[in-house]
Amino acid sequence: MIGAQVFVEPGQTSEETEQWFKMMKENGMTICRIRMFESYMHKQDGSWDFSLFDRAFKMAEKYDIKVMGTFFPATDKTDIGGWKFPKDNEQLNSFSEYIKQLVLHFKQFKSLYAWVLINEPGGGLQNNEFAREMRLEWNKQNPQPEYLPNGYPVLVDLQEYRFKRYMTSWMLKWIADEVRKSDQNVNLHVNNHAIFSNFQEYDFPYWRTFLTSLGGSAHASWHFGQFKRDEYALAMSANSEILLSGAGNLPWFMTELQGGNNTFSGMNAMCPTKEEIIQWLWTVIGSEGKGGIFWSLNPRASGIESGEWALLDFQNQPTDRVQAISELSHCINENAKLFGSLKKVETGVNLLYIRESQWTEDIITGGLKAATDGRKTELSDLLGYFQSFSEMGITPNIKAWEEFDFNKNDYRGTIIILANQIAIPNAYTSVLENFVSKGGQLIADGLTGYYDENVHNSMLTGFSLKKLFGGEISEYCFIDSVKQFSLVGCNESVPGYGWKGFIKPMPQSLILSKEGDKILASSAKFGKGEVIWVPSLLGTAARKEGSKPLSTWLMKVCKVQVPFQFSAFQKGLLMKTLKSDDGYLTIIVNKSKEKKVLVITKQDSKLISSLLFANFGGAVSGSQLTIHPEETIVVYWK
Amino acid sequence: MIGAQVFVEPGQTSEETEQWFKMMKENGMTICRIRMFESYMHKQDGSWDFSLFDRAFKMAEKYDIKVMGTFFPATDKTDIGGWKFPKDNEQLNSFSEYIKQLVLHFKQFKSLYAWVLINEPGGGLQNNEFAREMRLEWNKQNPQPEYLPNGYPVLVDLQEYRFKRYMTSWMLKWIADEVRKSDQNVNLHVNNHAIFSNFQEYDFPYWRTFLTSLGGSAHASWHFGQFKRDEYALAMSANSEILLSGAGNLPWFMTELQGGNNTFSGMNAMCPTKEEIIQWLWTVIGSEGKGGIFWSLNPRASGIESGEWALLDFQNQPTDRVQAISELSHCINENAKLFGSLKKVETGVNLLYIRESQWTEDIITGGLKAATDGRKTELSDLLGYFQSFSEMGITPNIKAWEEFDFNKNDYRGTIIILANQIAIPNAYTSVLENFVSKGGQLIADGLTGYYDENVHNSMLTGFSLKKLFGGEISEYCFIDSVKQFSLVGCNESVPGYGWKGFIKPMPQSLILSKEGDKILASSAKFGKGEVIWVPSLLGTAARKEGSKPLSTWLMKVCKVQVPFQFSAFQKGLLMKTLKSDDGYLTIIVNKSKEKKVLVITKQDSKLISSLLFANFGGAVSGSQLTIHPEETIVVYWK
Amino acid sequence: MIGAQVFVEPGQTSEETEQWFKMMKENGMTICRIRMFESYMHKQDGSWDFSLFDRAFKMAEKYDIKVMGTFFPATDKTDIGGWKFPKDNEQLNSFSEYIKQLVLHFKQFKSLYAWVLINEPGGGLQNNEFAREMRLEWNKQNPQPEYLPNGYPVLVDLQEYRFKRYMTSWMLKWIADEVRKSDQNVNLHVNNHAIFSNFQEYDFPYWRTFLTSLGGSAHASWHFGQFKRDEYALAMSANSEILLSGAGNLPWFMTELQGGNNTFSGMNAMCPTKEEIIQWLWTVIGSEGKGGIFWSLNPRASGIESGEWALLDFQNQPTDRVQAISELSHCINENAKLFGSLKKVETGVNLLYIRESQWTEDIITGGLKAATDGRKTELSDLLGYFQSFSEMGITPNIKAWEEFDFNKNDYRGTIIILANQIAIPNAYTSVLENFVSKGGQLIADGLTGYYDENVHNSMLTGFSLKKLFGGEISEYCFIDSVKQFSLVGCNESVPGYGWKGFIKPMPQSLILSKEGDKILASSAKFGKGEVIWVPSLLGTAARKEGSKPLSTWLMKVCKVQVPFQFSAFQKGLLMKTLKSDDGYLTIIVNKSKEKKVLVITKQDSKLISSLLFANFGGAVSGSQLTIHPEETIVVYWK
Repeated sequence: MIGAQVFVEPGQTSEETEQWFKMMKENGMTICRIRMFESYMHKQDGSWDFSLFDRAFKMAEKYDIKVMGTFFPATDKTDIGGWKFPKDNEQLNSFSEYIKQLVLHFKQFKSLYAWVLINEPGGGLQNNEFAREMRLEWNKQNPQPEYLPNGYPVLVDLQEYRFKRYMTSWMLKWIADEVRKSDQNVNLHVNNHAIFSNFQEYDFPYWRTFLTSLGGSAHASWHFGQFKRDEYALAMSANSEILLSGAGNLPWFMTELQGGNNTFSGMNAMCPTKEEIIQWLWTVIGSEGKGGIFWSLNPRASGIESGEWALLDFQNQPTDRVQAISELSHCINENAKLFGSLKKVETGVNLLYIRESQWTEDIITGGLKAATDGRKTELSDLLGYFQSFSEMGITPNIKAWEEFDFNKNDYRGTIIILANQIAIPNAYTSVLENFVSKGGQLIADGLTGYYDENVHNSMLTGFSLKKLFGGEISEYCFIDSVKQFSLVGCNESVPGYGWKGFIKPMPQSLILSKEGDKILASSAKFGKGEVIWVPSLLGTAARKEGSKPLSTWLMKVCKVQVPFQFSAFQKGLLMKTLKSDDGYLTIIVNKSKEKKVLVITKQDSKLISSLLFANFGGAVSGSQLTIHPEETIVVYWK
Repeated sequence: MIGAQVFVEPGQTSEETEQWFKMMKENGMTICRIRMFESYMHKQDGSWDFSLFDRAFKMAEKYDIKVMGTFFPATDKTDIGGWKFPKDNEQLNSFSEYIKQLVLHFKQFKSLYAWVLINEPGGGLQNNEFAREMRLEWNKQNPQPEYLPNGYPVLVDLQEYRFKRYMTSWMLKWIADEVRKSDQNVNLHVNNHAIFSNFQEYDFPYWRTFLTSLGGSAHASWHFGQFKRDEYALAMSANSEILLSGAGNLPWFMTELQGGNNTFSGMNAMCPTKEEIIQWLWTVIGSEGKGGIFWSLNPRASGIESGEWALLDFQNQPTDRVQAISELSHCINENAKLFGSLKKVETGVNLLYIRESQWTEDIITGGLKAATDGRKTELSDLLGYFQSFSEMGITPNIKAWEEFDFNKNDYRGTIIILANQIAIPNAYTSVLENFVSKGGQLIADGLTGYYDENVHNSMLTGFSLKKLFGGEISEYCFIDSVKQFSLVGCNESVPGYGWKGFIKPMPQSLILSKEGDKILASSAKFGKGEVIWVPSLLGTAARKEGSKPLSTWLMKVCKVQVPFQFSAFQKGLLMKTLKSDDGYLTIIVNKSKEKKVLVITKQDSKLISSLLFANFGGAVSGSQLTIHPEETIVVYWK
Repeated sequence: MIGAQVFVEPGQTSEETEQWFKMMKENGMTICRIRMFESYMHKQDGSWDFSLFDRAFKMAEKYDIKVMGTFFPATDKTDIGGWKFPKDNEQLNSFSEYIKQLVLHFKQFKSLYAWVLINEPGGGLQNNEFAREMRLEWNKQNPQPEYLPNGYPVLVDLQEYRFKRYMTSWMLKWIADEVRKSDQNVNLHVNNHAIFSNFQEYDFPYWRTFLTSLGGSAHASWHFGQFKRDEYALAMSANSEILLSGAGNLPWFMTELQGGNNTFSGMNAMCPTKEEIIQWLWTVIGSEGKGGIFWSLNPRASGIESGEWALLDFQNQPTDRVQAISELSHCINENAKLFGSLKKVETGVNLLYIRESQWTEDIITGGLKAATDGRKTELSDLLGYFQSFSEMGITPNIKAWEEFDFNKNDYRGTIIILANQIAIPNAYTSVLENFVSKGGQLIADGLTGYYDENVHNSMLTGFSLKKLFGGEISEYCFIDSVKQFSLVGCNESVPGYGWKGFIKPMPQSLILSKEGDKILASSAKFGKGEVIWVPSLLGTAARKEGSKPLSTWLMKVCKVQVPFQFSAFQKGLLMKTLKSDDGYLTIIVNKSKEKKVLVITKQDSKLISSLLFANFGGAVSGSQLTIHPEETIVVYWK
């Protein structure tokens, strides 16, 4: 399921249109997206003229390409992203009519594969008639008390965040319901975006109830601002893991990937290389993604963004990026059975994110210097852990709290990392206790648990995690620059950022790090499991200073059991491991500047390697891999 | 009078409350502040319930702690700083009722020491009904003419600034009057803040008429943005001097000092060290301050700033910062008689600030590049002089124009420095002439006198200071980078910043510095005194480049007679000197990175030194002092 | 025609006023400007009192100084620049009355030379009653279709920009018409400003129909922000060329030049040196300018900008800048006949700017990161070419598209450079084809031709320049850092910035540069001429990295025939060449840090050099020139 956005707009010719679908067919692309502009269908007299889009759907049929139509109700001509919520009931009703017209009309095409409910939900709720009415209703169901049961006043509230999250899901469900009124069978999909900021607004488990697949936009120059260009593969890997977890049992694929040069649009101008195209697609597939759709096949010709982003050149000829897609597609087709059966290999490592943490951080740094001087961290700490595992060839899960299965009876071999999750709802304590007591390992860093879900400081209102963590914090002290932590059992010191916390341990705790008589890190058994607590931003420091020390420490303290990993830390490399019916697939990307000859440590020594894909002459020989800078290698182990 | 803010809010237990007062008692703290939230007393049905605060006042009595209650009338729950002015008469009346209720109710407690009229006056005047009505009234008394008597038009005016200053004083007086309606005896106090910006809004001499003591907030991470962290002791010294001068014959103390870590609040995150706590308190005391109150003893638990700023840890146990306070308090108690009789030793050096200068600079750089490219200087030039003396162990006065006593008959030995006081009201000329003619020494730098009090350029409308300064400026020329000035009688060249001015001297003037045929600095006798004029920003350059050259020059040209000073320039050190009934006290702080062995030059060679306090093993032997980095040493000379 | 602004305001004395005119007379100044404040003439009772200004006009007569009066209708006292458009018809009518009063009254003075229609037109159109009414009317004449004839929708439009440009011209014409109602003979002049941004708003050819001379403000600290200080002479040269071209057959002179120190006003504070004063004036004269007027002779005394900008010092005495003017004026007077007959020597090189390019760039980067990260280029690319020629001693024309004469029959020896002109109206293609086919040489770089005049991407909607350029672009790819282009026939590689374009050449094209199999530059014959195409920002790179490589390449590919040029590239130098009746004048400025001994290559070896002016002892001997840093030298060749 690899493809691209066909951008349809008036002025284009039939010949061009056919050329685009022909190009896709010839280059191994099997699916496309089309933005279904109401403005180009709904005439001023109220009538509908679908001909411009019919032409594309027919060409799709002719060349055996599946179409995902993205709803795009009428908006200002300068509104390039479209609206996410209507401004009033009239616009909502008009949207309903638009959906009905489209669903009924395009049902006729065999090429129709799915509807994308709205382009990139997230953000966009305005203070308008519609929102105010919905809020009034919601407030009735979700009143905010002035005081909490413990007597403390609620001085700032997260209601706005809660309501926005509710509305994003409400809107998607409403659209899905509208479609289902006219078509019970068509696939439904949605592409969230800018995941490293918007994650806190989504409710993937709920979305699963009305979607048939989950997707996302991972548009490097728009969405990877927290990463340097040579970290975009890492960013794609993290983004993919968040979606994989979000999708649950649904399939997922990357709905939007940058296809070509951005000239004046986007945040960080660039033209993706063919190597990056390969890296991104394989990384998605290595995260159990069913494929990827590039934005876009052809560039739009009118207005802002015209001439940008495309896979085809201005003469509608394939660029080297298309050739790269074609080669990758060829590899997959040659091994169709294998690629049909892949599942991500479970590492047992789970980086959990708790949306209340992000909401709290957002509100508590609002408009202050803390918003820009490094104290606002978003997911950076979590991503530092992700990187630390990744550069050992291990890909942890990244999961919303709600997506983790807390209902098992045995968590031995399972690790949860709470990386600077500053706000933990009180009710989560017993859930975490249950997890650890049944054998789970919990690692907490930074200000994890500093607040509850109502912006009360848990250190003061009663630290409910005390029993589990084996202690409490006496003080957090700001550290001006990166601080080196000596941690018991680790030869290399691990840098921390932001704060150091002084732990008052309970008697049963082990001390992992001290500074004078202050205890900076500890561990504690709890039931069959244990908790490791380093109240400083180790992940953030790993992002800033390099992840080797954190990686070294994590390899020591985490009992990670994986079929494959790098035999040593590999700066700039990543590996994704999948299980097939009869073996394993490992996908390795080299973003370092050097050619690497490295050894893969495998659990099962009997497995024999064979090379499925390499784009710079990389090779595998037994467990030894040769991989060039920018190269992606796919190895099959049986 | 050392203490801390006890933060009282619903949800706290009686046990906690008692613990806090007990902790203060045990650690040498004798006074606390309490923010008197109307929101937690005034019930929705209009009734008053003081019980939450009664509990604290009773505990204060039990542990013999004095309480300063800070008025905090009802405001939005997210309004962390409270309002400074009411929005309308209704709110003013409601404030009146609040004051009456509180004053009458809390009168009963022996622990009640004073009311703080409002938290941190300064700024906060909005364009609302209340302000507009007051302004109409004020305008009648303070009309702004379209043309001045000299014929020039008034094109920009400082009325807004004048009105704001008036209102800040009006409001404080109004509150004081409201209190006095119900209590004739209680102490009245106010804590101004962010003094290095807000100084221009205050009228301390007027405030003395209704206050019983003056105070201030010198909250390092909020208010010392113009200083680096290793200059915070210097900043505290300068802040203290401004308050000492402002207080006149009233006692003063530092009402708010940062007590603990700031996490997300504040401008520059940090956790004060115990050494800084010591430095700040001794610096306040060295400026004749009666003590200091930390913000806060305990952290608030709810909302923004929860968990921050505290002296106690999250378990209500004393941190090392509390221990430091305790030691200092112990030292003072052991020498109670001595500390009861201290007066700052007069150095004769007065850095005067003229608020019209700041207003003019503010308006003339408004919204322009000059606001951010270094041309807007605020107090930086003055502070450069302060630092230059300070690093010689001499602490000049910093005085508002109104606070200096211009009514003496003899100013021999007295020095006034006008550091880039760009606007000097015309009426001040004769005052300065009187000062110099009676033996005073006047040093003027930068653009001093460039404007009058109506933003007319005095160079053009008639430079009334010509006779006094012994010349006039022909041109000011911008200098791109720091310029070295060779000054007669000084081996070392002194760096200047911003502008060089070309002086056209009168015949009697001496030339101090030339560039080709341009005269860059001069001096002139006037009556029994003299004026030294270097029209470039020497102080600002000292702040940027180090103060040694300026210090060297000042030591040559100023006839400073002090009982103690460093025998040589000491970068990063400061010394405050107090006179007791029978001797002297010198407080020395070492903010350099090295251990220093230095010699104190004393006027009276018979004085014998003894060590009262040293927190890193520092020592005094005769006139030789050994002081370690971050150490504070207190020496008693008799 | 060298002079200065006499700033007239109430409060000044008759003595001062006379002193100013006397000073001008004594120092070779023959013209002044006066801002004609309505506020100081129009009394509150409706009567007019011109006496303040009469005094100045009379003094002008006495000292034989010509006066240019600048209209300055009543505005708020804080509105330092005045308004450019009225807010409603009432204000327009009031402006009409003001013009009538002034024109009729000041007609009586022989000293009246001209009216300046408005100070610095450009910008300033507000969304007010007046503008909305005018827009409604304009819209009728200039409707914007929803779709273009080629079927593509118009998604963003440039109507706002078109309307603003229209209004700026409309307003000037309206004022001119108002003057002509009362005076048929007086000169009319206008000074545009900030030319490097505002160029796109002006319509000089139309202005010629009602002006008698064109002018400009080239106020270094306000308007040369894109240049470093040592490039201000270069900036003055470019600014002058734009005005020379704009003036057509009208005379032009620089209406406003920075005369003195700016303290708090302006963007980049500085005091011009006497050398800069000389450089600027000679550069203007070297661009066929009739002279220059400094802002200002005397400083204003009131309000913002008081004390700033002046040539005279605060005692109304001449500074060394006035002496410099005097010397230059003396040189001109001594050679009056020569200077009366000068015409710029035509180099044949034309840097054309197309205003739609700027409008498109502006709208397409609006509010995006591209506005600040280097992708928005304004004129920087064009200026890089200007500098590259200039440092060879050659001064190209800078012309608006409309100002170039496209109606000739032979363009051999004529070069047009389109430097990153991103939007080219479709109709211009045949015009350019005609130019090249008749022997012209066209050089295009960057994204030239990327859009049409309706923000459609020409690469997609049909690249009409394909035949002319000998190819089309397949892709533009962003380049992260400066890229070195190897260009056929040039030993030195030439740096490019921003983008590289891959050319698909037509068979007849020559390949000038390749990267692998990608073609990065090409040339093509077309009729009798040729087109050279390097689709990367060579000019921008020259501005950033130094212009020597681009200069070297241009010297190779352009067949520039000029009577004089440097024999080798001279970093930091410029030369302007003029033709007199019987010879040539060359003006050379040395902004490098070193003394230079350089050789001038002259076409006519018989010409004999003689030195007319040198301000640091520079000399000419045959073709060899010695010139010191900051020196300006004028050589006469006969």
